[in-house]
Amino acid sequence: MLVKSKVKYIQTLGQKKFRQEEGVFIAEGPKLVLELVSTVAGNIVEIFALKEWIDANKIQLKAVNCVEVSATELEKISQLSTPNQALAVVKNLDSPVPVAKKGEIILALDGIRDPGNMGTIIRISDWFGINQVVCTADSAEVYNPKVVQATMGSIARVRITYLNLHQWLMEQNGISIYATVLEGRDISTVKKVKEGILLIGNESAGISHGILSLADERITIPRRGGAESLNAAVATGIVLSHLI
Amino acid sequence: MLVKSKVKYIQTLGQKKFRQEEGVFIAEGPKLVLELVSTVAGNIVEIFALKEWIDANKIQLKAVNCVEVSATELEKISQLSTPNQALAVVKNLDSPVPVAKKGEIILALDGIRDPGNMGTIIRISDWFGINQVVCTADSAEVYNPKVVQATMGSIARVRITYLNLHQWLMEQNGISIYATVLEGRDISTVKKVKEGILLIGNESAGISHGILSLADERITIPRRGGAESLNAAVATGIVLSHLI
Repeated sequence: MLVKSKVKYIQTLGQKKFRQEEGVFIAEGPKLVLELVSTVAGNIVEIFALKEWIDANKIQLKAVNCVEVSATELEKISQLSTPNQALAVVKNLDSPVPVAKKGEIILALDGIRDPGNMGTIIRISDWFGINQVVCTADSAEVYNPKVVQATMGSIARVRITYLNLHQWLMEQNGISIYATVLEGRDISTVKKVKEGILLIGNESAGISHGILSLADERITIPRRGGAESLNAAVATGIVLSHLI
Repeated sequence: MLVKSKVKYIQTLGQKKFRQEEGVFIAEGPKLVLELVSTVAGNIVEIFALKEWIDANKIQLKAVNCVEVSATELEKISQLSTPNQALAVVKNLDSPVPVAKKGEIILALDGIRDPGNMGTIIRISDWFGINQVVCTADSAEVYNPKVVQATMGSIARVRITYLNLHQWLMEQNGISIYATVLEGRDISTVKKVKEGILLIGNESAGISHGILSLADERITIPRRGGAESLNAAVATGIVLSHLI
């Protein structure tokens, strides 16, 4: 049973302001919640789930705080249009400011605004084994429920750090910076890289001028038809598949 | 001024059933509407737009039927959360059953369900110069307003045909069929192709067994990290960027 004040509390976590005050976020759905249990159990404050689901996952859930709720209660606290068995309240994940190192690729996002794109980019990073993403402060908030869902669990494996991107790039020495732009070197002619920082720009404005000026190489996905641009997440996937 | 019955009529076009009965679809926003005017003017039944927009685009709109509406009226007929200057009612585009030819690449979708993915895949096809997509009947409807918006105008340049994919593939002779799967040949080792049919499967179930059995080559985007899968549109973009 959930007391009213708890229902109210979880509902408020749908809003950025309250999430930031509390330092927690919400993750939903059986796959995502189990993924978080197996990777960042220490960050899980509480899981609210249906009895059948708790019974079916007893062993994995042993060490976490689990509250049984009815389908009606889950509906009240869920951010999804179709609530799905389990919801976790999770403490924000650690995201110290990284230092670009030899042998590592870091993805740098300049103003990705769409939560779906942001989540999908985190999932793509994880697929390609990149575990650090840095973003400008105006990028979509990683704890927005739509971002969390779109990462499909990758949020637990990829660190996302918000910072002053221009300043941070200036501080990374001896590491190449690759910028994805509409007019640059054909991506298929760029050699595979072991390390570097890959810049992806805003959905409509691209990479801002000051940040772009710090790039060592400008790369492009050649266009062969009529579309004016590619979706930012799709472009990220294409560039990573060629660079790595 | 819009009469009530017209408002009602346009509103019903938000539903698949009515779109199919009428053989028309809705496209919104200044860029998309102008794109359609410049590519398929003959298919445009009527455009409803704000005075400023009509005045600013007088020359392009010369040959089409344009109705001036107020912002309040546009809001009533719009499918968007933020109506944007113009809405067009457009006759369905021609999409005869294609025959795969030498020198041409066709994209074949087996059950892409998400409208956003469907629209993004059409936009990607257009970027790479592919102007024919074939889909199973259970794929997202191309005239769903969410699909139309996600194509960003590419809907006017790419023909989308719904058909019995298994039977159609059996009828295409002498053309190679490439299937994108989780375990196949590393995409970076596959040679560029000039012609062929590229199969993309459903978001969670992949390519159905019967269809997959017709593939000449199974190709894979190698996974290097923890994510279980890639978004279907992202995978399409990556595979096309390597094959073309």
